[in-house]
Amino acid sequence: MAAPAEFDLIARIRERLAGRDDVVLGIGDDAALLAPPAGRQLVVAMDTLNADVHFPEGTAPADIGWKALAVNLSDLAAMGAEPAWCTLSLSLPNADAGFVDAFLDGFLALATTHGVALVGGDTTRGPLSICVTAHGFVLPGQALRRDGACVGDDLWVSGTLGDAAAALAQWSAGGDMDASLRARLDRPTPRVGLGAALCGIATACIDVSDGLLADLAHVCRASGVGAELDVDALPASPAFIANVAADARRALQAGCGDDYELCFSAPASRRAAVEAAAAGHVQVTRIGRIVAGGGVAARDERGEPWEPPATGYQHFG
Amino acid sequence: MAAPAEFDLIARIRERLAGRDDVVLGIGDDAALLAPPAGRQLVVAMDTLNADVHFPEGTAPADIGWKALAVNLSDLAAMGAEPAWCTLSLSLPNADAGFVDAFLDGFLALATTHGVALVGGDTTRGPLSICVTAHGFVLPGQALRRDGACVGDDLWVSGTLGDAAAALAQWSAGGDMDASLRARLDRPTPRVGLGAALCGIATACIDVSDGLLADLAHVCRASGVGAELDVDALPASPAFIANVAADARRALQAGCGDDYELCFSAPASRRAAVEAAAAGHVQVTRIGRIVAGGGVAARDERGEPWEPPATGYQHFG
Repeated sequence: MAAPAEFDLIARIRERLAGRDDVVLGIGDDAALLAPPAGRQLVVAMDTLNADVHFPEGTAPADIGWKALAVNLSDLAAMGAEPAWCTLSLSLPNADAGFVDAFLDGFLALATTHGVALVGGDTTRGPLSICVTAHGFVLPGQALRRDGACVGDDLWVSGTLGDAAAALAQWSAGGDMDASLRARLDRPTPRVGLGAALCGIATACIDVSDGLLADLAHVCRASGVGAELDVDALPASPAFIANVAADARRALQAGCGDDYELCFSAPASRRAAVEAAAAGHVQVTRIGRIVAGGGVAARDERGEPWEPPATGYQHFG
Repeated sequence: MAAPAEFDLIARIRERLAGRDDVVLGIGDDAALLAPPAGRQLVVAMDTLNADVHFPEGTAPADIGWKALAVNLSDLAAMGAEPAWCTLSLSLPNADAGFVDAFLDGFLALATTHGVALVGGDTTRGPLSICVTAHGFVLPGQALRRDGACVGDDLWVSGTLGDAAAALAQWSAGGDMDASLRARLDRPTPRVGLGAALCGIATACIDVSDGLLADLAHVCRASGVGAELDVDALPASPAFIANVAADARRALQAGCGDDYELCFSAPASRRAAVEAAAAGHVQVTRIGRIVAGGGVAARDERGEPWEPPATGYQHFG
């Protein structure tokens, strides 16, 4: 019997994989068999990327592979978890080995960086769609959650905001994307090291995927608090400043998604600890504070209220 | 800020969920936080259903929900695992609350039967597609795998074969599907209890999803053995016999998929143990034997070689 194309693709994936000691049985059976470490909790994230929804037409297959894993590792980072294993479901219009090879170039490059083993999943026919489930570990009681922010806490964000949104805006306007901005859109950096280092310091954490205002609103709702955001304090990259007019910056930085930075709260008394935790990983910037009440109030550098033109990415229009 | 439609859908899902003591944090954060039991291995399966590929147009949303979980629980069953948690990624063309409610009716009915908690995932815009990751537990060294079949073992299958394929054949021919056959196509029964009971008895196991011949070939390859299949010994349901002409039965039973029965090998000395393990779960039938060599040789009741017209479902045409 000739092996159907699906099994050829799976064999193609399987032969490129690195193992881990805690993977008892990886790709090739009905399910993966894994040995979780004793005394840890398991952290599980699952995110899907659909063509034309989560990445623009014409995105390089290697970048799609990178991003599909990155958005899931970003969720683990937001919990302070150490990544370990992932599964991948790849729906393709046809059994395109060239696409799969290039996709794996990006996917496995990021997996290798974080010591993540691809242990299972499936390949199937359908419109281009990639679903990943990522697994990691935390010590019991140490996970960063959305519901721990306290009145008086500082509000922080990692890296810079708005780069991916600026690239998408250039693309939507029919122009070329700036290479540096586009790299942030196509190959976001999950802040895994920072997230783990913040365990025991940050009181709440979320990754900025739907847009800072929308994601911060989730933290406020879960924690039963409000937030004041200093919108002119948001960190911006040189490429962002060079490519975006001054009057368009706030909306892209506060209102749009795809940054995959960590937004977190920490007691004002722990500023030195936050800086020390971030050192060697990524710059962190104070961007506001947690207050009593509810909702997010953004203010400009003059202290005037600022309202965004849109509130984050909406998956359903 | 108005909550985008995605968050409404997630809230809709969340309010219907039952918990488990080992779910520290379910839907509503960046990732789920779970407490695996000490001394068990983790079993992880991931399968996707795409519209028009894995279910016919017009399939009821509740049946799609059932099947999306069932095919994953079937993979856990084939490993002998006890199901515990699942995550769900639901891609929908639009935020259709009616679809989601009905989908959950089927999905949660099966989850409740097996004590499975839905702990996370995402909802997003895209062509209708459902990806599920299912998690379960086994005792170390007890998992049923594909690679343990030994020369001289009996070959068994659970339940009956061909019902789902017969329903699909009726549908493809433009006719009405027999209700009983269609129920097997739309609401397959994952053989979770049987799988767990076979730990320590079966030497290899797989679930019949792509078709018996194709799936049995996986076992033979993984185990380094061959198999002789008595094609006229394959168990058939009354509905199958009533609806399928005698000369079409073998191909549907041996060559087509979507049965989600367990095919397993066990030493001939353990026949009574196999029957005892199956009692109270589902009927099991001896359908052949494991032999030296490789590949699957099917024979009819006269002992003549039988060749199928097709070899299982191919995900890529």
